[in-house]
Amino acid sequence: MTVAAEPGEFELIDRYFRDAVARRDVELGVGDDGAVVAPPADGGLIQVIDTLVADVHFPSDAPAEAVGHRALAVNLSDLAAMGAVPAWALLALTLPARDEDWLAGFANGFARLAAQHGVALIGGDTTRGPLSVTLQASGFAAVVMRRSGACVGDQVWVSGDLGAAAAGLQAWQNGSDDVATGALVRRLFYPEPRVSLGCELAGLVTAAIDVSDGLLADAGHIAAASGVALSLAGEHLPLTDALTEFLGLACAREAALRGGDDYELLFTAPPTNHDAVVRAAERAGAPVRVVGEVMPGAGVSVDGVEAVGGYDHFAPSGP
Amino acid sequence: MTVAAEPGEFELIDRYFRDAVARRDVELGVGDDGAVVAPPADGGLIQVIDTLVADVHFPSDAPAEAVGHRALAVNLSDLAAMGAVPAWALLALTLPARDEDWLAGFANGFARLAAQHGVALIGGDTTRGPLSVTLQASGFAAVVMRRSGACVGDQVWVSGDLGAAAAGLQAWQNGSDDVATGALVRRLFYPEPRVSLGCELAGLVTAAIDVSDGLLADAGHIAAASGVALSLAGEHLPLTDALTEFLGLACAREAALRGGDDYELLFTAPPTNHDAVVRAAERAGAPVRVVGEVMPGAGVSVDGVEAVGGYDHFAPSGP
Repeated sequence: MTVAAEPGEFELIDRYFRDAVARRDVELGVGDDGAVVAPPADGGLIQVIDTLVADVHFPSDAPAEAVGHRALAVNLSDLAAMGAVPAWALLALTLPARDEDWLAGFANGFARLAAQHGVALIGGDTTRGPLSVTLQASGFAAVVMRRSGACVGDQVWVSGDLGAAAAGLQAWQNGSDDVATGALVRRLFYPEPRVSLGCELAGLVTAAIDVSDGLLADAGHIAAASGVALSLAGEHLPLTDALTEFLGLACAREAALRGGDDYELLFTAPPTNHDAVVRAAERAGAPVRVVGEVMPGAGVSVDGVEAVGGYDHFAPSGP
Repeated sequence: MTVAAEPGEFELIDRYFRDAVARRDVELGVGDDGAVVAPPADGGLIQVIDTLVADVHFPSDAPAEAVGHRALAVNLSDLAAMGAVPAWALLALTLPARDEDWLAGFANGFARLAAQHGVALIGGDTTRGPLSVTLQASGFAAVVMRRSGACVGDQVWVSGDLGAAAAGLQAWQNGSDDVATGALVRRLFYPEPRVSLGCELAGLVTAAIDVSDGLLADAGHIAAASGVALSLAGEHLPLTDALTEFLGLACAREAALRGGDDYELLFTAPPTNHDAVVRAAERAGAPVRVVGEVMPGAGVSVDGVEAVGGYDHFAPSGP
């Protein structure tokens, strides 16, 4: 028999979910060749997938809890950008060696966020190799937000504040550990996906995306998909005092524009929906603000100057 | 603007699918934060995920076509073991560097098998890092096969033949390239998932699994999940002449029992369903044979001797 006396790595992770999340639409979960689920009869099924590679998407010495949290958070953020309510996740975890403490931390970070959003872990795979986490998540939405619907004259909105994750990475790499920078590091390691906001906004907006590659890059994706230009106002960028104190105003703006990993929502809506957007954001408990306008043309500009670049894994010269 | 003049890596892969597979149930495919699909109102949705890591699950010098084929094949094999008709796939590909020839080969191998089974690539993610492929696939099944229903007195069946992939790996590592060993290497690199057979068998069998970890290990999974013992007969193992000529009978049997990567189906069914199973296999064009019997007890035995071990990624001392 090959059933190990010790539980397998996936079984260890699964244990953290057993009591945390139970969903009636999961007919068969972890432990067979596949999971069996029952999507609702009405409304679309939204599927997302994202990989985090050590030392590319997170420092390899990041806390295991943070890696578990983040692997789920980046996928929930993609679902939020589509306006979907999350439901199920499949986890593919590649580890260099068995490390029960690390696994327990990872599972804990993952399961805590999953419980918060009612996400069931329904299956997965654990393999040996360089540290890497791929998570696939599914959710439901009756009305879907896309990148492609922005119209000239729409207002450009962003949720929360920007740049904290980029500053947090800098603080982590510098070994800063006072209270103020600790909050920035926390924003890097424990991003809170805007799930409620995404659900509230669907139907009010013309386009949406989550800010993962940096505001400029993600604004560029909306502009390209919609065939319009996005004009942003530098003074309206949402920067916290903690960020400007840590980086100074000029660098704080750069972090907000190019930093990435913020996992806020960037979206466009007609001015006639302004008040409805504000009320939707209030219901979701998420601050939102207008940061620009949709214009004829192509590309993204800040204060009238054409902007270039963000973080792009796909670019030929990229990292 | 960050839209690269050259297409991104994922867009290159996606091009191979554009004309190959179109499905009406895909409302929004590659290019947004998530895919939107419409599962059928009746029947369960089956979800599987599997990772292939270079030099763990395939030689890093394997042809790119083979890596693309195999990444999809192992997931379709999991769906087949559940009795599901495959529908959609999400691909997470981690590559050390941009290599257009490799990508074209990978996409070609992937798209060819996908077209054969009507699978649409609906989204994914490309990242930098050590070579690794994670694929998540979904399918539909009105009746699902599980590992857990084997009953004492059931016959134990296996499809096709076993051991060829393990022998093919040996041949590849030896650099053998004659016609006979070439066929074995092909079985390693281009496994054909038993999708039709899986669909035909659902409703006739009590338990099923695909043979990925090796016959003994996978029989062990059925035994453990079902709370029974599986008794196999060595002389009934399906071995090809090519295999026994290459390895000799004793090693051929070992390859069949422990080799893994065969992607055949192992299943149990009551003797009263014997003829129906044979007819189902004929409809699917898949050879099947009885290799043993379900007994009271636990574990797996071959010719009455308790068997130990197969390939187990999860085992503490595993590779």
